[in-house]
Amino acid sequence: MFYSPKEGWSQDALGATQVSRLRETLKQAAKSPFYHARLAEAGVSPETIRSPEDIRRLPLTTKDDLRSAYPMGMCSVPSRELIRLHASSGTTGTPTAILYTKNDIQNWASLMARSLYAAGVRPEDVFQNTSGYGLFTGGLGIHYGAEMLGCLTIPAGSGNTKRQLKLIRDFQVSVVHIIPSYALYMGSVLVQEGIDPRELPISRAVIGAEPHTEAVRSKVESLLGLKAFNSYGLSEMNGPGVAFECEEQNGMHVWEDAFVAEILNPETLEPVDEGEIGELVMTTLTREGMPLVRYRTRDLTRFIPGRCPCGRTHRRIDRIKGRADDMLIIKGVNIYPMQIEQVLMNIREVGQNYVIEIFQDREMDQMRIKVEIRDEYFVEDMRALQALQRRIASLLRNEILITPKVELVQHNSLPQTQGKAQRVVRLD
Amino acid sequence: MFYSPKEGWSQDALGATQVSRLRETLKQAAKSPFYHARLAEAGVSPETIRSPEDIRRLPLTTKDDLRSAYPMGMCSVPSRELIRLHASSGTTGTPTAILYTKNDIQNWASLMARSLYAAGVRPEDVFQNTSGYGLFTGGLGIHYGAEMLGCLTIPAGSGNTKRQLKLIRDFQVSVVHIIPSYALYMGSVLVQEGIDPRELPISRAVIGAEPHTEAVRSKVESLLGLKAFNSYGLSEMNGPGVAFECEEQNGMHVWEDAFVAEILNPETLEPVDEGEIGELVMTTLTREGMPLVRYRTRDLTRFIPGRCPCGRTHRRIDRIKGRADDMLIIKGVNIYPMQIEQVLMNIREVGQNYVIEIFQDREMDQMRIKVEIRDEYFVEDMRALQALQRRIASLLRNEILITPKVELVQHNSLPQTQGKAQRVVRLD
Repeated sequence: MFYSPKEGWSQDALGATQVSRLRETLKQAAKSPFYHARLAEAGVSPETIRSPEDIRRLPLTTKDDLRSAYPMGMCSVPSRELIRLHASSGTTGTPTAILYTKNDIQNWASLMARSLYAAGVRPEDVFQNTSGYGLFTGGLGIHYGAEMLGCLTIPAGSGNTKRQLKLIRDFQVSVVHIIPSYALYMGSVLVQEGIDPRELPISRAVIGAEPHTEAVRSKVESLLGLKAFNSYGLSEMNGPGVAFECEEQNGMHVWEDAFVAEILNPETLEPVDEGEIGELVMTTLTREGMPLVRYRTRDLTRFIPGRCPCGRTHRRIDRIKGRADDMLIIKGVNIYPMQIEQVLMNIREVGQNYVIEIFQDREMDQMRIKVEIRDEYFVEDMRALQALQRRIASLLRNEILITPKVELVQHNSLPQTQGKAQRVVRLD
Repeated sequence: MFYSPKEGWSQDALGATQVSRLRETLKQAAKSPFYHARLAEAGVSPETIRSPEDIRRLPLTTKDDLRSAYPMGMCSVPSRELIRLHASSGTTGTPTAILYTKNDIQNWASLMARSLYAAGVRPEDVFQNTSGYGLFTGGLGIHYGAEMLGCLTIPAGSGNTKRQLKLIRDFQVSVVHIIPSYALYMGSVLVQEGIDPRELPISRAVIGAEPHTEAVRSKVESLLGLKAFNSYGLSEMNGPGVAFECEEQNGMHVWEDAFVAEILNPETLEPVDEGEIGELVMTTLTREGMPLVRYRTRDLTRFIPGRCPCGRTHRRIDRIKGRADDMLIIKGVNIYPMQIEQVLMNIREVGQNYVIEIFQDREMDQMRIKVEIRDEYFVEDMRALQALQRRIASLLRNEILITPKVELVQHNSLPQTQGKAQRVVRLD
């Protein structure tokens, strides 16, 4: 039923495993120059941990810490024991790098295989990975997992939609790994070329890597004619395979035998109340090459209360609500771009593309939202359009508490993207 | 001493292994629709093979056969047993695809690890792979081998020379996998930026994937301050890891426990005499997913006579002399572009870039060679330049038997390339 029996472990068993692995992790982390100093400074040691809750007594780790420890300051093994490095693109400032031993790669692949299995992928599936390969973890990370599960794995890489579609058809691809904005783009190509998605052999998509709403998932599902499963990962926690949706499609199980997940108020750094949104903070439990303790992901989410009908005991996180850093402050109000997307995608007349423009006016940030309207609603009647514009602005005000400027534009008039969609543009 | 004891097997042991594995291969191949028909038509079966020489009684396989069997016509296992697909870019015409089982991937990685070890790479090395990842076999193929060997493997991917150099320095990279034209480009970047190659930690490069001369190897070695080892592979025979140079740097050992290599006259299809140049024809000996029998590689090379001082018994092939298809016929003479490169790279005044232009004149193909001259030799004295031009033309005539038009151009005036160098340009 599960890929690993660990997925059904009791909370007690998971808690006990977390305690012993946390202690191991602290011992291992202390072998790196960075944590040797950081843990001593905080006065903590493996003995600090007696229950899973004791993790709160450990110091936090930030992206800036990762940058300052670059290249090898967080490495906990002699470098001859490392077999892999992944790095951020590092186009601006100091890059970050994650280092893996052979066991780390093996454990990652096995978590990834477990994740795909939870989303319904089986060894007999043909699996196409449309992530870019190389230093980015989405390529090799997903690849090793699909291969370990036993799928015929096609390392298609990113872009070249015509070739992606040719491979899907020629090799009867049943599952694709694809980011939501590229899935929407592929869907628009199908529409342009008059291809009925039901002609395609794909029945499942694993999506993730960029925050998106339930409405975007529904669009991906209907445009491509498949079921789409959300996923969560970040290179600091290996890469993909940290939390995955099961067949219930209602939240992503965090693999709690491999990670401790906390959700903290990003201001007070205290745990939020059950079910409340906060910043996800994660600790590796099995990593040898580069353990990370209470890493602040900057991703906003919440634990979904209750147990999942699928039987897996590992807690679920909700879809990512945005980045703690993405928060916009407009007229003194905190706004997350994801809130805007959520409203727009529930309005029937709205197409699949929009952009939030931030500009300065009277020395204050102002917001203008350009929204693509479906062809059938983009009528000549100016009054009808103005009414639609007012309705959208009013629905947005209900969610974000201020009335934004809304501009309606024609279908396909905003720049399409093959990579991560850039939804917020700052005009200076 | 060797990665695998098989590398030192006697000719008898290798021959006996080839016979039994050839029989297995024929049995396995006959499970595919393509070979089922092709082998029956040729009236051959496993019993046809009683000695390694009996391979000549088997039918040949061509690139066109691969295309016609696309996508699954040469697949010898139920598709649920496949775990990997690699494909040609297929920008023109039907693509080709190679299918691998789990054992195929394991065997490939192990041949690749053996190859790197033969070229002096060790588990404690830090290995940077500058091949593009994805459907191309140079990325994942080299990667799996380096990782199996135990190197810290950096999946840098292609391009972005600044980042390549940053990774090399930050992680004390000791070995790079790099194609010769990109190595020359990287060398020119070092010169431009005033970086002394001896400052860099790299001491070894694995080169290959495009035919090049001994002079190009020497240039790569001096520009980057390292030892460069030639390699041979093609996706039809897994990818990289088919034949590799050892520390002797004198020819590439073909792993004869995994492949049968023949060298045939491309016209008569009979074996050439020992040491003569001909077309390399190869047969897989361990492949399950898609065995290939006597595949015509179109690559021109020869067996290097005699035994290698390194002690490996597997025969060596010489560096690739060009493609059977690349042959130019100018004024009735057969010319391989590699002959021209070989002459040019031995002329002190010649820089690292040149291009062979083919154009029509009086309904015949004509050839013009544009050659970059190093700055210090590109003098104002027209007579000196004309003398150099005549000398180059005369040296070329000695090799290719006709006197080509030679045009001298300034350093850096020909288009530089980060990918495979296109040395022959057809002007229409």
